[in-house]
Amino acid sequence: MTTQEAFALFRQKIKEAHALSHAMGVMYYDGDTAAPEESYLGRGETMEYLSGLAYQIETGEELKNAVDFLWEHRDELDFQQRREVEVFRRNNEYTASIPQEEYVAYVSLLNNANAVWHKAKLENDFASFAPYLKQIFDTNIRFAKYYKPDLDPYDVQLDMYEKGLTKEKTDEFFEALKEKIVPLLHRVMEKPQVDCSCIEGKIFTANEQRPFSDYLMELITIDRKRCSIGETEHPYTTGFNKKDVRITTHYHEDSFLSSMYSVIHEGGHALYELHSGDELENTVLSGGVSMSIHESQSRFMENLIGRSRAFVSAIYPKLCEYFPAQMAGVTPEQLYLAANKAEPSLIRTEADELTYALHVLVRYEIEKELFAGKLDVMDVPKAWNAKYKEYLGIDVPDDRRGCLQDSHWANGNVGYFPSYALGSAYGAQMLTKMKETVDVDGAVARGDLKPVADWLEAHIWKFGGLYDPSVLLEQALGAPFDPKFYTDYLEKKFTEIYDL
Amino acid sequence: MTTQEAFALFRQKIKEAHALSHAMGVMYYDGDTAAPEESYLGRGETMEYLSGLAYQIETGEELKNAVDFLWEHRDELDFQQRREVEVFRRNNEYTASIPQEEYVAYVSLLNNANAVWHKAKLENDFASFAPYLKQIFDTNIRFAKYYKPDLDPYDVQLDMYEKGLTKEKTDEFFEALKEKIVPLLHRVMEKPQVDCSCIEGKIFTANEQRPFSDYLMELITIDRKRCSIGETEHPYTTGFNKKDVRITTHYHEDSFLSSMYSVIHEGGHALYELHSGDELENTVLSGGVSMSIHESQSRFMENLIGRSRAFVSAIYPKLCEYFPAQMAGVTPEQLYLAANKAEPSLIRTEADELTYALHVLVRYEIEKELFAGKLDVMDVPKAWNAKYKEYLGIDVPDDRRGCLQDSHWANGNVGYFPSYALGSAYGAQMLTKMKETVDVDGAVARGDLKPVADWLEAHIWKFGGLYDPSVLLEQALGAPFDPKFYTDYLEKKFTEIYDL
Repeated sequence: MTTQEAFALFRQKIKEAHALSHAMGVMYYDGDTAAPEESYLGRGETMEYLSGLAYQIETGEELKNAVDFLWEHRDELDFQQRREVEVFRRNNEYTASIPQEEYVAYVSLLNNANAVWHKAKLENDFASFAPYLKQIFDTNIRFAKYYKPDLDPYDVQLDMYEKGLTKEKTDEFFEALKEKIVPLLHRVMEKPQVDCSCIEGKIFTANEQRPFSDYLMELITIDRKRCSIGETEHPYTTGFNKKDVRITTHYHEDSFLSSMYSVIHEGGHALYELHSGDELENTVLSGGVSMSIHESQSRFMENLIGRSRAFVSAIYPKLCEYFPAQMAGVTPEQLYLAANKAEPSLIRTEADELTYALHVLVRYEIEKELFAGKLDVMDVPKAWNAKYKEYLGIDVPDDRRGCLQDSHWANGNVGYFPSYALGSAYGAQMLTKMKETVDVDGAVARGDLKPVADWLEAHIWKFGGLYDPSVLLEQALGAPFDPKFYTDYLEKKFTEIYDL
Repeated sequence: MTTQEAFALFRQKIKEAHALSHAMGVMYYDGDTAAPEESYLGRGETMEYLSGLAYQIETGEELKNAVDFLWEHRDELDFQQRREVEVFRRNNEYTASIPQEEYVAYVSLLNNANAVWHKAKLENDFASFAPYLKQIFDTNIRFAKYYKPDLDPYDVQLDMYEKGLTKEKTDEFFEALKEKIVPLLHRVMEKPQVDCSCIEGKIFTANEQRPFSDYLMELITIDRKRCSIGETEHPYTTGFNKKDVRITTHYHEDSFLSSMYSVIHEGGHALYELHSGDELENTVLSGGVSMSIHESQSRFMENLIGRSRAFVSAIYPKLCEYFPAQMAGVTPEQLYLAANKAEPSLIRTEADELTYALHVLVRYEIEKELFAGKLDVMDVPKAWNAKYKEYLGIDVPDDRRGCLQDSHWANGNVGYFPSYALGSAYGAQMLTKMKETVDVDGAVARGDLKPVADWLEAHIWKFGGLYDPSVLLEQALGAPFDPKFYTDYLEKKFTEIYDL
């Protein structure tokens, strides 16, 4: 076997595994958007079978031999090739440490858990979801121990979502945020609340909102030939390759802002997937490098761009076109303030920028306690509600607006949440750097997001998984990451809005 | 290996092949309903890979050995088991006769052809689709020759869709229809046309029509937990198992009847798939037995039930609820007449019952000529238009309303079309038989379709592929098939409507 033969075999096997995950990804998306309710009864077996095939490829002798050979001969590989082998080895070590039947059983568990969570949320019935949640956490802990028996399983979990992340670093990060955000929030709460009456109590039907979503997607430079939009209980993005990315939203008739910011947020994820380098397609390096970097892109679009005064004024004329009756008499400035109202609330995805990180903190702490065995799954609602009281000062009226609100755990995304807060903080520092060379406010105010997209493509998107997140970030920022940019940004913005 | 071990292995392999076709089916459906336009660029490779896996299972040594063993020991199998082996052997002989690379290339061709046809139809551009159409016909002819080198390839093709069908029988069948329908149509044409002004020129938006589709699906007894509806250029039904069936429709704002009868037609297909016996699930016998029997169910619901006076009067109050402005002043009798206007027209799926079979005849004759090498693909539009002139007396203004209107050929469904006419004729004889024990008009007039569905389930649906179509049909009808029931039905109905 020559090195190039081994590399060709390696690429071929990765492509086969991609084909299987493509199929599973479409089945999952379809199950969430178009499939009838009881279709999950037949989907589970098919997903099990496909994931078994993927497992066999990813952990099979043929691929292992090729990769071992390539690692020995890595000096003969170019930079991208070497990185492909390195990233595969790292990911594969995790999969290969799990016995196949447990791996397949977990895929099947998630298929069922998603359906059960969906119903449980609608019916505010945590008890029906609890056994699934317990199995999901137990499985993740067990898998983390298979993978790295000597490390703390939650550290293992965090590291999988963000190479190098630990509880210690995450604790430190959240401490830096809490220190600034909590007093800032208290000062905001002492001031009169911004007036949102301009859009409150108005009805925006889903039929009216749908074409507006199309407008927003075009505005933020999404190529609609390669990205479609669906409707799900919880908005998300999924990409199968750079020719096929899907975002979803959820229309609330009493608030067009909810779906609008979901579309922009998911659109940010989609842009990252759509602009991964062509040379990375069908390799282990295609798509985003980590969840935090992914969230840095989505929350960048949603908040740093989408909730800016420039953006709101840019879309104002279109809003009046799409919702003439509801927008009558509303000024751009009123809308800007309504989009930036800061107050403790129940739903993370609809939280303002200021309180957002506190929502994430609640989830992070619960995950940490579940992993440490300090919290029983049945007590998650109690813990959730207590933490919302502690950090946000509010009472959670029911689990559908409490611990059942997010789909992440039902989908096995355990250890994911810190990414949202980290990503928000990365984004703030990126914006500062971007402004050194791009007239961001000027371009956005003209409704021209291309300069922003071009910068992100050149510094983040096109690299896919070519660099570890910390390396990519430092390259893009030209400096080490510092959460101060994020807290400074929040302080400046909300000081101005609330006249602190 | 014991017989039961061999049978278990056989069932296992069929289940694996089903899992792969389930995944491919969902990807196809998703590609048609939700995926972005350029997603086909990535889907083709995945479909190729999955179909290659399916091919390997279906033609592999392991399955072949088990099936050979089972066939030798078929005396030890019960009726259903024996039938499973028999049907598999018959279907498999076809697949196994095709070299894998050609089989896989054909799957990939169809993926591309569907995307190209879609665009070609929208842009009225036959030339762009022609090379694909040629390849599809050439491939089908080649495959038929691999399979049965000594038989006429079009006979082979017809037999695959309907066991036992030949050109000779089909010619004879269409002769019997032509003989009755053509003079009947001439008599109708001499009479004053029914008055459709009650619904003409009115706008029914897609948003208004969507909830009405839900009502219709419930009315015809579809379990919505297991059947969803999507929107495609050309309506169709696809089922992955009896827990997951999809129908599609296409909303035309200028005619709610178009989508209404699509929904009822596809709903008839869906009911057949949804009510296949539980014991047949995940075997080669699940779902419908043949395309003609399938079409007998869809066209039964659409026409024999859906276009009956009883049905139109039953849904009339709901129509007034869903479309109050448009239905103002319209009587049930006016609506019944509008739904049964008979006249030569361009679009098969929207054709009335009387002219329908002539649309099918055009397609059948073109397929026959293409298979016989008497017609070149580039001349299909010319041949199509000439036959529409000859049988229906009308000029085809463009290919999008001509030979590009149907998706069948782009999907590789060559030899399928006669099923529509045969199915229509089977249905008429079933209705006569059903009326011996069921008060069909009474039940339908009450809006209660359960007695009709129960009869069809007991006589057709539950048997899946357990019997050959001719056997199933004769069991259900209690007599051999005779197209006279169909022509008599048409004569009676249109004599009354047009006062002939």
